[in-house]
Amino acid sequence: MIYLVRMDVALPATMPESDATELKAREKRYAQELQRDGRWAELWRVVGEYANYSVFDVAGNDELHELLAGLPLFPYMRIQVTPLAAHPSRIAAEEDLAPGNP
Amino acid sequence: MIYLVRMDVALPATMPESDATELKAREKRYAQELQRDGRWAELWRVVGEYANYSVFDVAGNDELHELLAGLPLFPYMRIQVTPLAAHPSRIAAEEDLAPGNP
Amino acid sequence: MIYLVRMDVALPATMPESDATELKAREKRYAQELQRDGRWAELWRVVGEYANYSVFDVAGNDELHELLAGLPLFPYMRIQVTPLAAHPSRIAAEEDLAPGNP
Amino acid sequence: MIYLVRMDVALPATMPESDATELKAREKRYAQELQRDGRWAELWRVVGEYANYSVFDVAGNDELHELLAGLPLFPYMRIQVTPLAAHPSRIAAEEDLAPGNP
Amino acid sequence: MIYLVRMDVALPATMPESDATELKAREKRYAQELQRDGRWAELWRVVGEYANYSVFDVAGNDELHELLAGLPLFPYMRIQVTPLAAHPSRIAAEEDLAPGNP
Amino acid sequence: MIYLVRMDVALPATMPESDATELKAREKRYAQELQRDGRWAELWRVVGEYANYSVFDVAGNDELHELLAGLPLFPYMRIQVTPLAAHPSRIAAEEDLAPGNP
Amino acid sequence: MIYLVRMDVALPATMPESDATELKAREKRYAQELQRDGRWAELWRVVGEYANYSVFDVAGNDELHELLAGLPLFPYMRIQVTPLAAHPSRIAAEEDLAPGNP
Amino acid sequence: MIYLVRMDVALPATMPESDATELKAREKRYAQELQRDGRWAELWRVVGEYANYSVFDVAGNDELHELLAGLPLFPYMRIQVTPLAAHPSRIAAEEDLAPGNP
Amino acid sequence: MIYLVRMDVALPATMPESDATELKAREKRYAQELQRDGRWAELWRVVGEYANYSVFDVAGNDELHELLAGLPLFPYMRIQVTPLAAHPSRIAAEEDLAPGNP
Amino acid sequence: MIYLVRMDVALPATMPESDATELKAREKRYAQELQRDGRWAELWRVVGEYANYSVFDVAGNDELHELLAGLPLFPYMRIQVTPLAAHPSRIAAEEDLAPGNP
Repeated sequence: MIYLVRMDVALPATMPESDATELKAREKRYAQELQRDGRWAELWRVVGEYANYSVFDVAGNDELHELLAGLPLFPYMRIQVTPLAAHPSRIAAEEDLAPGNP
Repeated sequence: MIYLVRMDVALPATMPESDATELKAREKRYAQELQRDGRWAELWRVVGEYANYSVFDVAGNDELHELLAGLPLFPYMRIQVTPLAAHPSRIAAEEDLAPGNP
Repeated sequence: MIYLVRMDVALPATMPESDATELKAREKRYAQELQRDGRWAELWRVVGEYANYSVFDVAGNDELHELLAGLPLFPYMRIQVTPLAAHPSRIAAEEDLAPGNP
Repeated sequence: MIYLVRMDVALPATMPESDATELKAREKRYAQELQRDGRWAELWRVVGEYANYSVFDVAGNDELHELLAGLPLFPYMRIQVTPLAAHPSRIAAEEDLAPGNP
Repeated sequence: MIYLVRMDVALPATMPESDATELKAREKRYAQELQRDGRWAELWRVVGEYANYSVFDVAGNDELHELLAGLPLFPYMRIQVTPLAAHPSRIAAEEDLAPGNP
Repeated sequence: MIYLVRMDVALPATMPESDATELKAREKRYAQELQRDGRWAELWRVVGEYANYSVFDVAGNDELHELLAGLPLFPYMRIQVTPLAAHPSRIAAEEDLAPGNP
Repeated sequence: MIYLVRMDVALPATMPESDATELKAREKRYAQELQRDGRWAELWRVVGEYANYSVFDVAGNDELHELLAGLPLFPYMRIQVTPLAAHPSRIAAEEDLAPGNP
Repeated sequence: MIYLVRMDVALPATMPESDATELKAREKRYAQELQRDGRWAELWRVVGEYANYSVFDVAGNDELHELLAGLPLFPYMRIQVTPLAAHPSRIAAEEDLAPGNP
Repeated sequence: MIYLVRMDVALPATMPESDATELKAREKRYAQELQRDGRWAELWRVVGEYANYSVFDVAGNDELHELLAGLPLFPYMRIQVTPLAAHPSRIAAEEDLAPGNP
Repeated sequence: MIYLVRMDVALPATMPESDATELKAREKRYAQELQRDGRWAELWRVVGEYANYSVFDVAGNDELHELLAGLPLFPYMRIQVTPLAAHPSRIAAEEDLAPGNP
């Protein structure tokens, strides 16, 4: 099941530099694990902002919440989730790969 | 270059049914052509809304505007464009395909 | 899977009374069918507004969109979907029914 | 009388971990008591957010305010209350339970 | 039970003058009936707007919705309802009337 | 002259408990004095929020500002003022009291 | 008593040119009468918009509403009223006129 | 050149009382100087808020920014500037003073 | 004097195609005249929208309003004006052109 | 490729004066370097605000993010990016320079 997720990060000004560094390193490892197992399907930086747009492909609402709530930066993020469905104008996956298509 | 695009469609209540049908058919053909040539990279329906989230992969701002302004439904849509950049926690494409990854 | 859905209805001022009546009758039959099969789990009127808050219990995003897009009033509604997950403070269903609970 | 309530929690960054833990434990006990006596009728997590949507079934406005203002996390929450009414398309409770319904 | 209600009226530009006049006359009679039986407790014009703030004193959510949905101008209004509770700093009604108070 | 006033209170997390208690006690005395002299005509709690809706009946804008700026909690409140006028559908005060009215 | 008023005009696209012209002429006469008697104290165009910011100096809320509701363009305007009070840093009128001031 | 300016002040809760007092005194002197030389043409308190609406009459954008950025409270204010133009319905200054006008 | 201006165009669905074409041609001629005389200094399309961001360099507020109100599309546009000032980090124009700069 | 960028700066009240001064000096040097190499094409102060509107001319989304994220004030700014495209009514650069044009 597909979800679009936007995350905006705001670390408190009072957080020691070393804590921030350690937190971001943990966040990165966490994000990469989920990318490797295919559940964090896309990850882009929003230009000019400490924010990302991501696509998750998970079993459903509960699994998505569990993944997001487990993010090391979760307490410092505003997260917006948009559930997505198949679009009728989407070309079929097979067509995508069919010979003769550009 | 990657852009996230949200399109919300609102056809005027006065549009004849046949015009709407014809317009949507043209929109679908146009969308599928751009998917086949790889520039309309992702296309999802927003659950419960006559709207989509799309990802475009184009040469830049001018090409994106040209593609969007050419949409048959363009005069009836509100479009929001968010430019995206590579994210430092994104796993490299090669790693994605490397043996040993799930 | 649980979703909170808010629907705001706005019929065009130009719609003939009989069309509106017929549309609302179809909407009611549709809503009641989905309530009977358990997928439209809750349905409340928002006080003072031509709007409802509903709870859907469906297989996932695609099924929810299919149900909502099939609503006879769909072209005349603004719909907002919020995906919900289990809450850790929710008392378990069994406890609910256990003897000795008030 | 039915109310939809959304609660968004924001603990101050300066609150000691132990205070937060104790507060959350008290919040959980309080929430479960109200669920057991039937006044906190539904409780869901909003996916990706430290927030919930809840349904309360209470005698009226004053009782609802008293319950909400008594929440241990009340000073740290933004709460939005929407009064709900019976919906004319809601299938009657008796019908729900009638033999022959799915 | 007390509710604050704001109503913003927007008649369609296409409504014939005579329809508007008749509708407003019915609205006035309806509003005055409810004032006389005490349920429409306060009614003020918002300065500079075709809008009012009202206070309703009714049995609860369902009765309030029934009254509001019955307004002749209901299809042409945006209505916002805020449930109100007793305030701990409110002087008691008896004190209000007690001898010696100004 | 009538004004609707909404006040939202937000005490800083760093304020010592005793200061808050003393401030609230002063606020209550102040509010009750103004109720007794008739200028703070109505006072309700907004359900679920540390906020109130109030009606003031004062000589005009300057007096209202003086009263509000004098609130002990003024530095910690967001205040919104809506000037109100007589509504043409308001039943006259005399009619209210006339024999034969319920 | 002083009020800041913003008026945004939106004539319906269907209004005949001659009606619009006649309406604007009446609006102008009305606005100039109120300026001459001193109640419409200031009148400026908002740069780039069919809108104005105005200052009214009237007896109070009721008189202001009566003046605004009497505007020929009233049915086609969105009006926002902000009540104003004397500012403690305002130099006194007498000082303004005192000899020796620039 | 005329500009409408709204200033909302928010002093940090941590600012010592004496600093605030000194800052406000400097702000007042600064405001009065600019009123005396005619550039800060109007100054009103927004009822119920620690905010003002002001009218500035200056040579242009650069001078206005210089004046506003020089305000002692500038670091603690949110400022919104609206450029204003002459309004075609404004009665001419001479007419204002002409004999025979009320 | 410099201003940033955003213009969003929305032609009514009922405007005949030929009127729209004629209007846009007049708009284009008007825009190009102002570009040639240097007052419409910059003109960009907002990607994906029937909108532009423009920079105007004019004598002041009154001239800007006159230019904008004279736009053939003015009745069909929402326009937002932001006055701009010189920025202290802007490199001087002469430095820009000095030999030795990249 | 052209982008409009708005930056709003908010330094924390707790930042020592000397840190702020040093940060702003670094920001200025950074901004001027980018202006000299032509990528930070325009830079204006928003009148009355600690904010700027800027125009960037860069290779694309990734380069723009890299430049913005490298701003010394980046952690203290809210940044909004709007991608821009060529406008069909823009006079050609050559025409601009052609003899006979004003």
